[in-house]
Amino acid sequence: MLRTIENGKLRLEHVGQSVELVGWVAKKRNFGQLVFIDLRDRTGICQLVFDESFSEKTKSIRNEYVLHVKGSVHQRKDANPDLATGEVEVLVTELEIINSAKTTPLIIADETDALEDTRMQYRYLDLRRPIMQKRLMMRHAITRSMRDYLDHQDFIEIETPMLGKSTPEGARDYLVPSRVHPGQFYALPQSPQLYKQLLMISGFERYYQFARCFRDEDLRADRQTDFTQVDIETSFLSEVEIQTMMEEMMVKLMKEVKGIDIQAPFPRLTYEQAMNRFGSDKPDNRFGMELQDITDIFTNSSFKVFQNVIESKGSIKAIVVPDFAQGLSRKKQDAYTNYAKKNGAKGLVILKADEKDLTGSARKFLSDEEVQNLFERLELKANDAVFIVSDTWLKTCTALGALRNQIGSQLGLKKKNEFSFLWVIDFPMFEWSEEEQRYQACHHPFTQPKAEDIPLLDTDLSKVKANAYDIILNGYELGGGSLRIHDNQLQKKIFEILGLSDEEIRNKFGFFIDAFQYGTPPHGGLAFGLDRIAMILSESDSIRDVIAFPKNASASDPMSKAPSNVDPKQLEELHIEITK
Amino acid sequence: MLRTIENGKLRLEHVGQSVELVGWVAKKRNFGQLVFIDLRDRTGICQLVFDESFSEKTKSIRNEYVLHVKGSVHQRKDANPDLATGEVEVLVTELEIINSAKTTPLIIADETDALEDTRMQYRYLDLRRPIMQKRLMMRHAITRSMRDYLDHQDFIEIETPMLGKSTPEGARDYLVPSRVHPGQFYALPQSPQLYKQLLMISGFERYYQFARCFRDEDLRADRQTDFTQVDIETSFLSEVEIQTMMEEMMVKLMKEVKGIDIQAPFPRLTYEQAMNRFGSDKPDNRFGMELQDITDIFTNSSFKVFQNVIESKGSIKAIVVPDFAQGLSRKKQDAYTNYAKKNGAKGLVILKADEKDLTGSARKFLSDEEVQNLFERLELKANDAVFIVSDTWLKTCTALGALRNQIGSQLGLKKKNEFSFLWVIDFPMFEWSEEEQRYQACHHPFTQPKAEDIPLLDTDLSKVKANAYDIILNGYELGGGSLRIHDNQLQKKIFEILGLSDEEIRNKFGFFIDAFQYGTPPHGGLAFGLDRIAMILSESDSIRDVIAFPKNASASDPMSKAPSNVDPKQLEELHIEITK
Repeated sequence: MLRTIENGKLRLEHVGQSVELVGWVAKKRNFGQLVFIDLRDRTGICQLVFDESFSEKTKSIRNEYVLHVKGSVHQRKDANPDLATGEVEVLVTELEIINSAKTTPLIIADETDALEDTRMQYRYLDLRRPIMQKRLMMRHAITRSMRDYLDHQDFIEIETPMLGKSTPEGARDYLVPSRVHPGQFYALPQSPQLYKQLLMISGFERYYQFARCFRDEDLRADRQTDFTQVDIETSFLSEVEIQTMMEEMMVKLMKEVKGIDIQAPFPRLTYEQAMNRFGSDKPDNRFGMELQDITDIFTNSSFKVFQNVIESKGSIKAIVVPDFAQGLSRKKQDAYTNYAKKNGAKGLVILKADEKDLTGSARKFLSDEEVQNLFERLELKANDAVFIVSDTWLKTCTALGALRNQIGSQLGLKKKNEFSFLWVIDFPMFEWSEEEQRYQACHHPFTQPKAEDIPLLDTDLSKVKANAYDIILNGYELGGGSLRIHDNQLQKKIFEILGLSDEEIRNKFGFFIDAFQYGTPPHGGLAFGLDRIAMILSESDSIRDVIAFPKNASASDPMSKAPSNVDPKQLEELHIEITK
Repeated sequence: MLRTIENGKLRLEHVGQSVELVGWVAKKRNFGQLVFIDLRDRTGICQLVFDESFSEKTKSIRNEYVLHVKGSVHQRKDANPDLATGEVEVLVTELEIINSAKTTPLIIADETDALEDTRMQYRYLDLRRPIMQKRLMMRHAITRSMRDYLDHQDFIEIETPMLGKSTPEGARDYLVPSRVHPGQFYALPQSPQLYKQLLMISGFERYYQFARCFRDEDLRADRQTDFTQVDIETSFLSEVEIQTMMEEMMVKLMKEVKGIDIQAPFPRLTYEQAMNRFGSDKPDNRFGMELQDITDIFTNSSFKVFQNVIESKGSIKAIVVPDFAQGLSRKKQDAYTNYAKKNGAKGLVILKADEKDLTGSARKFLSDEEVQNLFERLELKANDAVFIVSDTWLKTCTALGALRNQIGSQLGLKKKNEFSFLWVIDFPMFEWSEEEQRYQACHHPFTQPKAEDIPLLDTDLSKVKANAYDIILNGYELGGGSLRIHDNQLQKKIFEILGLSDEEIRNKFGFFIDAFQYGTPPHGGLAFGLDRIAMILSESDSIRDVIAFPKNASASDPMSKAPSNVDPKQLEELHIEITK
């Protein structure tokens, strides 16, 4: 063993001991005849002291050289309180230069001003920065904690195929031409959905998998070509039983990884409540400014815009931003209006409160009574700003929810070291597709409608709710799932409602429906986005900070981003040809 | 919760308790007015008793129906000693039929006579067989044990990209056309080799990953389109230190998963010793019949075949099969001769021992002194059979090793419940390719040659040994690895020896060689084949028994085997066209 102890672990208790250390040169400086080197390994940094006998050898050493030293641990005269090892130093007696290093194109430190492009091109150096190492170590701590929980609950990890048939997840599949079956293609999995349901039919009862999933979509800041999903499925459990387990898993995770006690059960909001109060099906409840319904105040409004909404049974809702009116310039108001429009609103009413009245361009359309009612309903105080959207219920909620999030961010209300979990439940089973002029499955076609809503399948699809649920953390969807249909007839009915012909059903899902005939248990589960959990817990903004070798649309990453041109012979073997 | 206890866990201590159970009907039989049902879940089977009040309801129940029952636990009058729950039964008071089941196309039992094709087509039912569930549970127990060891040794699990550039592993890559970069292709990884070395350059020091790896090769009984590799890499450790850790991991694994104490350190054979003694670089040392060198006995042989071999500095080797001569018919001898030829031998000499002499068609070419020497050297006894091959050293070893394995199997010497580990070390660095008339890397081009053999790089490549090692279990290669080159100059030299031009080096490995310039630590590791470990420990012959949804060249598996025809529009988007 080249080392007897890791650099970051040296403490006063080691004074007087002989040690061997290895690591990278983080800093070198001369002080008279002495040379000081900070030697870094993954555990931290330790100060080495070389006396003049090493002056020839240390001359050549530069940052990021790899060293192996022997020496003795001494107490430092001038302790460095910023460093865990700051009370000691190692007086070197033997030095071996294991490897040299060119000047690195980015500085190996937590803070970096390197461009994203440079970081990607030299990812192996970017990952040498201690903060990046900590993030990937935290990601590992997260998987360990989750696995540990699931193992203790007798879940079985089972790997499912990477090369299979297309599954009906909605996004585009990555295709893989088959050499053995010319002209045919495998698909990379978008999720193990069908397999995990088959495993329940097989009687495994509790399954999990840390599964790589693929979607052939454009790269975005928070979207990679592939992602890691913590995929969980159970048999014989109710929705609440599944959720309770997942809460236990999260409580344990937060304690072990972040040292934070969180309380279970988490708040549960129905989809409708979440939209009504937060204008989002993934509410960020770290801050207030909730949406408030004010439709009834304007039942007899003379304001044309409100009149129309009332007539078409739409909604009028407001958010109040306290102490925000002053400084809300015309320019800022325009920006918020544009933001609301970008999120689907036709317009945005902005009013400023003083002691008793409201000001703003829409004030003239409001009666004094309406203003009075607003003051009471919204508990307005002087200098409050009021943002009002009126439209269909969904559009009003969505636009105002987006605005709430935007202002919450701007006001710094989304504290990265605060962690707020909740469940959104009772999602609608179907959503109307304007484009296709028919109902589509909100979640996926295997989701179980709520038992009490089954009669509605024949009368009003818009009102059917599903046993579907999402777990939300800080406004991000951490995961989502549902109970699945285990009744063959009901599954067929749902397929029919979704407009699949018998032939389509047979072609696409024939084997799957067949499987349901041989004793299918009630089952359900959910899937977590691991990358996202890791991002939030490591208090980063970028999913790329918690993936060792991410893809980046703009950067020139030689390892993972740019695919390769392929030997024409290989394409010939695959029976494919590149067009244009 | 539908159940209060799992079926397989019911014992005498539960007598008198009220319980709720769920599961599948494994067997139903009538006994007078009573109906008995064996209810199965993943933990086992429990006997239910229904009195006549249920006779109407139980009439419809058939095998594999899913039931939910309430009842009370009673002691059985006629205990079933074959069943863990055989001392108790549950007298049912409430019955809910959760789901029905058609007659299954294969019997849900450990023993099955179903064809491979049927098992694959109805894999979800094949997996319902308790023995298959146990195998997949064992696979999970294996990964848990290995992860646990690695976590406690401060290894960090890091995921590496699935869509990347081709890596130089030798086999064919699966190609994935890129939608974003028309005409270009990603490759699915054959191993995370380059990434894990980059992670060492990044300073992670100890990395592991349960990595899916892909090779676009024909399916075989023990080869899938993809496999799972336990990929491990370390910095600053010696070959022996790495091996010692892996031994600790295996000792723990065997204890936890099989309840077996194995001894470390494992035997270490050099490649040369392994070939000399077992005629294989993955020796099965559960049985003897080792190869014995008898070249010197025939220095002055008058047997033409041996003479030629002696002259060309080849090897003559023998294996002795005790008590095997009787019954070794002419027909069997021909079969062994053919087997030896199939494995590269020009012929096979078979001799039978009696008290003092040998018989066989080659006896007449041997002198009495030679026979005497054979008797002494090989410690022959009456009724021993002697098999001799003479050829170049490698061909002699290989053919005789194959024969040894074959006879060992036939004699039942490869006991599935015996587990024998060993290391094969000191592999050659290069092997001569007859086809390409040049030296190739035995392991891969990043393998470190032994320090003492570096001068041989300029004089005799055939003699250069590498810091490369395989871990063997029962004649299977469980895993293999090496120390890697961490010196830029040496890496370039190896590339040159392998005949790569400067341009090829730059194109293929430019970024990789660049990375080595920024402070690369000494590093090395290895990779285990998880599927194979699971197969051997579950005492199965087929890799498909430990993969939930395997591919099968011959079977019609609707989920995973046959890829799909693709919508021509999708191909157009990918800028590819199917030829012919």
